[in-house]
Amino acid sequence: MTHRRTGLWLIGAFGGVGSTVALGLAALRQKLTDCNSLVTALPLFRDCPLDDPSDFVLGGHDIRRTDYVREVQALHERANIFRSDWLKACRLILNEWSSNVRPGFAADSGAAIAALADWGEAAAPKPAADIIAQIQTDLLEFRDRNALEQMAVVHVASTEPAFPLETIHFSLTRLKTAVSGSQSVLPSSSLYAWAALDLGLPYVNFTPCLGASVPALLELALERKAVIAGQDGKTGETLLKSVLAPLFVARNWQVLSWVGHNVIGNRDGMILDHQENKSAKLQTKSKVIAEILGYQPQTPVSIEYCPSLDDWKTAWDLIHFRGFLDVKMSLQFTWQGCDSVLAAPLVLDLARLALLAQGRGEVGILPHLACFFKNPVGVVEHDFFKQFTLLEQYVRDLKNSPAVSN
Amino acid sequence: MTHRRTGLWLIGAFGGVGSTVALGLAALRQKLTDCNSLVTALPLFRDCPLDDPSDFVLGGHDIRRTDYVREVQALHERANIFRSDWLKACRLILNEWSSNVRPGFAADSGAAIAALADWGEAAAPKPAADIIAQIQTDLLEFRDRNALEQMAVVHVASTEPAFPLETIHFSLTRLKTAVSGSQSVLPSSSLYAWAALDLGLPYVNFTPCLGASVPALLELALERKAVIAGQDGKTGETLLKSVLAPLFVARNWQVLSWVGHNVIGNRDGMILDHQENKSAKLQTKSKVIAEILGYQPQTPVSIEYCPSLDDWKTAWDLIHFRGFLDVKMSLQFTWQGCDSVLAAPLVLDLARLALLAQGRGEVGILPHLACFFKNPVGVVEHDFFKQFTLLEQYVRDLKNSPAVSN
Amino acid sequence: MTHRRTGLWLIGAFGGVGSTVALGLAALRQKLTDCNSLVTALPLFRDCPLDDPSDFVLGGHDIRRTDYVREVQALHERANIFRSDWLKACRLILNEWSSNVRPGFAADSGAAIAALADWGEAAAPKPAADIIAQIQTDLLEFRDRNALEQMAVVHVASTEPAFPLETIHFSLTRLKTAVSGSQSVLPSSSLYAWAALDLGLPYVNFTPCLGASVPALLELALERKAVIAGQDGKTGETLLKSVLAPLFVARNWQVLSWVGHNVIGNRDGMILDHQENKSAKLQTKSKVIAEILGYQPQTPVSIEYCPSLDDWKTAWDLIHFRGFLDVKMSLQFTWQGCDSVLAAPLVLDLARLALLAQGRGEVGILPHLACFFKNPVGVVEHDFFKQFTLLEQYVRDLKNSPAVSN
Amino acid sequence: MTHRRTGLWLIGAFGGVGSTVALGLAALRQKLTDCNSLVTALPLFRDCPLDDPSDFVLGGHDIRRTDYVREVQALHERANIFRSDWLKACRLILNEWSSNVRPGFAADSGAAIAALADWGEAAAPKPAADIIAQIQTDLLEFRDRNALEQMAVVHVASTEPAFPLETIHFSLTRLKTAVSGSQSVLPSSSLYAWAALDLGLPYVNFTPCLGASVPALLELALERKAVIAGQDGKTGETLLKSVLAPLFVARNWQVLSWVGHNVIGNRDGMILDHQENKSAKLQTKSKVIAEILGYQPQTPVSIEYCPSLDDWKTAWDLIHFRGFLDVKMSLQFTWQGCDSVLAAPLVLDLARLALLAQGRGEVGILPHLACFFKNPVGVVEHDFFKQFTLLEQYVRDLKNSPAVSN
Repeated sequence: MTHRRTGLWLIGAFGGVGSTVALGLAALRQKLTDCNSLVTALPLFRDCPLDDPSDFVLGGHDIRRTDYVREVQALHERANIFRSDWLKACRLILNEWSSNVRPGFAADSGAAIAALADWGEAAAPKPAADIIAQIQTDLLEFRDRNALEQMAVVHVASTEPAFPLETIHFSLTRLKTAVSGSQSVLPSSSLYAWAALDLGLPYVNFTPCLGASVPALLELALERKAVIAGQDGKTGETLLKSVLAPLFVARNWQVLSWVGHNVIGNRDGMILDHQENKSAKLQTKSKVIAEILGYQPQTPVSIEYCPSLDDWKTAWDLIHFRGFLDVKMSLQFTWQGCDSVLAAPLVLDLARLALLAQGRGEVGILPHLACFFKNPVGVVEHDFFKQFTLLEQYVRDLKNSPAVSN
Repeated sequence: MTHRRTGLWLIGAFGGVGSTVALGLAALRQKLTDCNSLVTALPLFRDCPLDDPSDFVLGGHDIRRTDYVREVQALHERANIFRSDWLKACRLILNEWSSNVRPGFAADSGAAIAALADWGEAAAPKPAADIIAQIQTDLLEFRDRNALEQMAVVHVASTEPAFPLETIHFSLTRLKTAVSGSQSVLPSSSLYAWAALDLGLPYVNFTPCLGASVPALLELALERKAVIAGQDGKTGETLLKSVLAPLFVARNWQVLSWVGHNVIGNRDGMILDHQENKSAKLQTKSKVIAEILGYQPQTPVSIEYCPSLDDWKTAWDLIHFRGFLDVKMSLQFTWQGCDSVLAAPLVLDLARLALLAQGRGEVGILPHLACFFKNPVGVVEHDFFKQFTLLEQYVRDLKNSPAVSN
Repeated sequence: MTHRRTGLWLIGAFGGVGSTVALGLAALRQKLTDCNSLVTALPLFRDCPLDDPSDFVLGGHDIRRTDYVREVQALHERANIFRSDWLKACRLILNEWSSNVRPGFAADSGAAIAALADWGEAAAPKPAADIIAQIQTDLLEFRDRNALEQMAVVHVASTEPAFPLETIHFSLTRLKTAVSGSQSVLPSSSLYAWAALDLGLPYVNFTPCLGASVPALLELALERKAVIAGQDGKTGETLLKSVLAPLFVARNWQVLSWVGHNVIGNRDGMILDHQENKSAKLQTKSKVIAEILGYQPQTPVSIEYCPSLDDWKTAWDLIHFRGFLDVKMSLQFTWQGCDSVLAAPLVLDLARLALLAQGRGEVGILPHLACFFKNPVGVVEHDFFKQFTLLEQYVRDLKNSPAVSN
Repeated sequence: MTHRRTGLWLIGAFGGVGSTVALGLAALRQKLTDCNSLVTALPLFRDCPLDDPSDFVLGGHDIRRTDYVREVQALHERANIFRSDWLKACRLILNEWSSNVRPGFAADSGAAIAALADWGEAAAPKPAADIIAQIQTDLLEFRDRNALEQMAVVHVASTEPAFPLETIHFSLTRLKTAVSGSQSVLPSSSLYAWAALDLGLPYVNFTPCLGASVPALLELALERKAVIAGQDGKTGETLLKSVLAPLFVARNWQVLSWVGHNVIGNRDGMILDHQENKSAKLQTKSKVIAEILGYQPQTPVSIEYCPSLDDWKTAWDLIHFRGFLDVKMSLQFTWQGCDSVLAAPLVLDLARLALLAQGRGEVGILPHLACFFKNPVGVVEHDFFKQFTLLEQYVRDLKNSPAVSN
C-alpha cells in the first residue's frame, strides 16, 4: 500500500452509507476491525499501489444538519449494529470529520428529498453556476485545510426522480451556456458531478441519480482528465440476480418469471416510498435479468417501505423456470442484509480504485469497475462473474505494466 | 450435428433418471419437445460435431424387472410430471428400448440396493471376472444387434456405500490378479466401469459410486483409449452452492455457517435413507464449499427421505456470513426441482460430449466436463462458472483445431 | 346425508373455481375422489342433514362462451393439475352441465372484466330491471328443467372495481325505484344477488365484489326469507394471517410489520393486474391483521400478475415483531397453493351450509360461516379459530335442536 | 398486582435463559423495559392477584462458576441483543443475584452436561439423599436470608439424556427406599424436583428433562401440597406447529409430510449436538403434529448445532399436504427467534401462575398451563389455541370465585 494524504468527499455525507463509511474508516484507523468485506483487500490486490484506508480524511455535503456521532449512534440503536465500544473509541475522529461537512444542495432533486433538508437554502432555486461554484469552493477549502495530496468524490445521497436527457445534455458547449442561465437544466447530483470533474477529481456515482451520466459531463471529464464510475451500487438483490441469472443461461433453463420483492425501512426506503423516486430505482433494478438472459421473462420488482426493518433490507425473490420436458421448477431466496454495511466497504473500494486509475493516467469511464454497479456506465455486461473477470484482468495488466513499479 | 447410430447404455436403466432419459430421447425423436435444458444445445456448441439425440438407441442394465412404459407412467403419476399424450406417443419406442435392458448386478453394492433387486441373482456372490464378462457380453450383443457405430456407458444407479481404496486398487496388474480370484475387491459400479473401459467405451459416472474412480481403472482406460467422466451429477443444491460460494469470495465476506437440508422422496431418497449410502453421498456434497472458500466454515448437510415429495427434491440452505464491521447477515434459498428431470438432460450432454472427445482421440479423464459434477475427478476447481469456462475454452479450441472439419 | 335434487348456480361458471367445482362434483359423483378438503366432510358434521354432493346439478352464468371440458382441460394443461383419466371419465357429466350455462352480464363491472366477454351483449348498457328479469328467467328455467327441489347461487366471478354505496343503497324502496330507471345504480354482482334473493334463493358471495353487501339487499333477503353469506373466500395468505396473527396476541408479542406479497398467474390475477380491481381486493385483504391485533402495524400487501404460475398462487409473508427486552425477531412463510383447488371445496361447503340453514328457516346473514371469508359480512371476528368455533357451536346447537330429527 | 417478597430459584441459573430472566427482572424493576411478551401482562389477567415482577428475588443452582454480569455481557456480544446501557443500569442487581447462586449437581445428567461443569463435584457420584439434602439447605438458606414470603423453582438447565422409568418410579415409598441407597435411581433434574416438592415449593420444568415427570414425585407433590408444571417450554418451531397443524384439521387437508429443521448455536445447541441429549429433545418435539392431526404423516425433525448463530434459533419447516382432487400443495416457514429471549418471559409467567395457583390451594399438575409446553404433563391437547382456552377459562373461573377478593 502507498501512503498519501487522501480526501474522500461524500455527497450525502451523514446518510446511512456515509455514516457507516465514517465509522468504518475510523475503526480501521484505530485497528478495531479488519478489512473483511473490502474487495480491494482480496489477495488479488496484493502489491497493488492502493491507498491505505488509514490515510483517508473524510468530508462532504449534506442537506441535513447533524453530525457523525449522532448518526452512527442512531443507526446503532435503530438497526442494532456496531459495537458500542467502537463508537466510543471513534468519537474524536468522527467529530473531526463532522466538522468537514458543508451544507448541501437539493435543487431539482424532487420534493421528497427537499423535505429532508433542514438547511434552509438546500432546495432554494439558485443559478446552477452559483451552486457549482459553491461546491468547488467547499472542495478546495477541504483539500487545502487538510493538505490533501489527492481526493475522490462519491455520491451516496438519496435517489432523485428520473431526469430525462434532452439535446443540450449531449454537448458540453451547449450545456455550459444553459448552466449559466437561470433555467434549471440539471438535477443536483449532476451539479456535484460537474463541480468535481471540472476540478479534475474522480467522481463515483453510488446511486441511481443522474450524476455524471450525461454525455456532456463525460466530455468534461475527458477534458479535465478525470475518471468516472457508476452507477448505483450493487449490494443485495440485484447482486444475487447478476450471480444467479447466468446459471440459468449456462444450464439452458428457460426463466419464465423472476419476481423480486424488497422491503426496507431506512431513509433510503422512505425516499423510495415516493413514486417518482421509486421509478428511478426500479429502472436500474429491472434491466439486469433480461440483459443476462438475452430474452425478457416476466420480471416484476417491487419495493416496500417498512420502518421497523430500518437498515435491514429483506428481499424475497422467486424464480420460476422451465426445465427438460417442460417441467416447471422454482428457486426462492431471501436476502437479509444491512444496507449501509453492505454499501460502505464498496464505497471505500471504489474510492481506492478510482484514485489508483486516475493516478495511472486513466481518464473517463472505468469499465473494470462494472462489478460494483447495478447499471454500469459504459458496460453492457451484467453477469457478475464476467464483470469480476474484467476487474481481475485489469489488476493483472496493471501488475504487468511498468507503471506499477512507481 | 453428425449422424451415426449411437448406443447409450445406462447402468440403472429403469430408475427415475434412466426413465426420464428414455422418455426425453423418445420425445426428442418424435419432435414433441425441444432441447431446452440441454447444455449441448446452447449456441456455444453450434457447429460442433455432436451426435443428434434422434440417433440414440437406448439399452442398459437394471436389477429390477420392469419396463419403461410402466416406470414412466408411475413417475408421471407419483411426481405429476410429463404430459400424458407424450407417454402415449412414445410407447412404441419405449417398448423397443425396454427390450434392450438386461439383468444387472448388485454385488457389494450394500444391503439397501440388494433389497431392491427382483432379479434373483443380482446380488449373488459370484467371481468378479464372471460378472465383468457377462456385462461385456450384454454390451456387445446390444451393439451388434443394433448395428451401432459408437456407444457410451453412463452409470445412473443408486448410491452405493463408500468403498475405501486399498493398495491393490492402485495397480492394474495387481487388481487384475485380485479380480480373477474369488474374493470381492470392487463394488458393482466398478465392475461396470471395468467392463466398459476394457471394451474401449466411454464411461460416465453420474453418481457418487466408486465406478471408475480407481487408479487402476484409469490405467485401464488409458490402455484401451477410453474416456472417463465423473462423478455425481451436479443438479440442485450443490450446483447452487458452487454458484453462490464464489460470490462470498469475490465480495470478501466471511461465511460463518452454510447449512444445507435436503428433502427427497424418490427411490434415490429411499436408498439414501440408509446410513452407509447417505454417508457416501454427503461426502461428495460437503467438500464444495470449503474448497471454493479456501477455509472451512460450519457446513452441516442433511438429507431426509419424505416419500410424498417423490421426485421433487426440496433443499433449504441458510448461509450465515460476516460483513463489514462484523455485522452478521444471511441468505436463505429454497430449491424445488424435479430430480430426474434435472439429471436426464445432463446425461445426454455427457454422453454426447464423451463420444465427441473419444471420437477426437482424447483418452482418460475429461477435465472440461467438471461443471457437470459434484466431485469432478481430476479437477480441484469447484466454482461453477470457472468450471464452465473450462468447457467454453474446450469448445473454442475444438472449433479452432483442424480435427473439427472432419 | 339427505337426498334432494339440488341445483348449484355459479356466477362465473366457467372460471377456474367454477370449472374445478364442476370437475370435483362430477368426480365425487363417479366416486373417483374422496371428500378430502371439504370442511363439511369433517367428523363434526356427522349426522347433519347436509345434501349429498352427488345430488348436485350444476348451472350458471358466464360472459365467456366456452364449456367445462375445454376449461378443465386447459386448467389441467396450464397448471398441471387433475388426472387426465378423471377428465375423460367426467366428460359426459361436464357436457351436460355446460349446456346449463347461460350468457352472463358485466354491466358496471369495469373495463377489465368487460374485455373478457365474448358474449357481445355482456357489458351492454341495459336497464337493471331487464338484467334482473333475465337472470331470474334463467334461474327458473334451470330449476324447472331439472326438477330441482332446492337451489343455491354462488358468485365466483372476477373481482369488480370497488363500488361505493350511496344513500339510495340503504333503503329497498328507494333502490327499487332507482333500479327501474335507466341510470346504473348497482354493479352486475349486485344484480345477480338481487335476482337470487328476490326468488328466495340462498346467495353466497365468494368474491370481493359488492354482491349482496348492500343494506337494501339485506332487506330484500329478510323479506324473501333468503340467506346470505360472504364475502371473499379465505383460501390462502389471508387464511394464514387469520391463523397466525392470534398467536402474536396470545404471546403478547408486538407485531411491527407484516408484509404480504402475492404472485398469481390465472385469469383472476390478470383482472387484479388492473388497478381499480386490485384496490377492491386489497381492501378486503388488509383489514384482518389490524382487527385481530387491536392496533395497526405496518401492513403492506401487494399482488403481482405472473402468467407462468397460472393457478399456483405463491404468497410470501414477512412478520417482524418485538419480543422481550425489545429484541426484534421474524417469521417468514411461503404459501404455494392452487387457487381454484383451494376455493372449489369451500364453494361446495358454502352451498351445503347455506341450503341447510335456509331449510331450517334461518334468514339473512349467516354469521356462523365467517371462517370461510376474508371479509365476513355481519361479523367482526377475524381470528380463524374463533370463527371456526362459531361454526362448531352452530353445529352443536343444530344437533341439539329438535329440527334435526327431521 | 399483589406485593409479596417472592423468590425465583432457577436450576441452570447462569444459562442463556437464566441470564435473560435475570436481566429482564432487573430491567423491569428499573422500569427500563415494559411487560411486552409476558403472557401474564395481557388484558386477560387484569385484576388477577399476580405477583409484581419487581418483587422477585433471584437465586439458583449452576454447575458453572460464573456470574450474571459476565453471562449477560457475553450473550449481548455473541447474539447482538440487549442495550448496553441496560446492562450498565442493572449491574448492581445482577451482582446481588449472582451471589445467590449455589453450586449445582449433574449426577446422571450425561457426559455432555458433566463436561460443562467447572465445579469439581458437580457430577461426582454421591448418594441421592445427600444431594437432595444439600439442595434443600440451599433453598432454605436463600429463603431465610432474603426473608421471602414465597418461592418457586424453575428448571432451565440443559437437556439430559432420556431416562426410562422403571417400577420403583411408580411408588413414592419404594422410590424413597431406593433414594436412600447408594445406587443412582434418578437424574439430577429429578433430585431438584424432589427437593423442591418435598419443601412444598412449586416446581416448573421448562426443559425436556425428566424432573417431576415421575409418578412417585407427583405423589410427593400431592402429599406436600405443591404444584407442578411442565414440560419443555414451547417457544419456537413447536409453537408454530401447534398453531398451524389445527388449520389443516379445520380445513380437512391431509398433511403428507411435515419436515422440521432447526439450527441453533448456543450452549443448548451444543448439548443437543450429543446424540443422547438430542434424542430426548426430539421425542418431545415430534409428537405434537400426529396428536393434533389424529394420524401420523411423515414428520422428520432435525437439529443442527451452528455456533455462529448463537442464540438465534432458525427453524425451517416444510408442510406438504393433499388438497381437493388430490392436488399436492405446500407451506414453508422460517422462524428466526432468539431462544433465550423467547423463553425468559414464559419463565416469569410460569413462576407467577404457579405461585398464584399454589396460593389458591391448588395441588399437583396444573393443566391450565399446557399452552406453555411442548409436552404438557397431564394434558393430551396440543392445539395451541385450545390450550390457551384452558388458560382463559381458568382465569375467568378464578375471577368469578370468591377467593380472588382476598
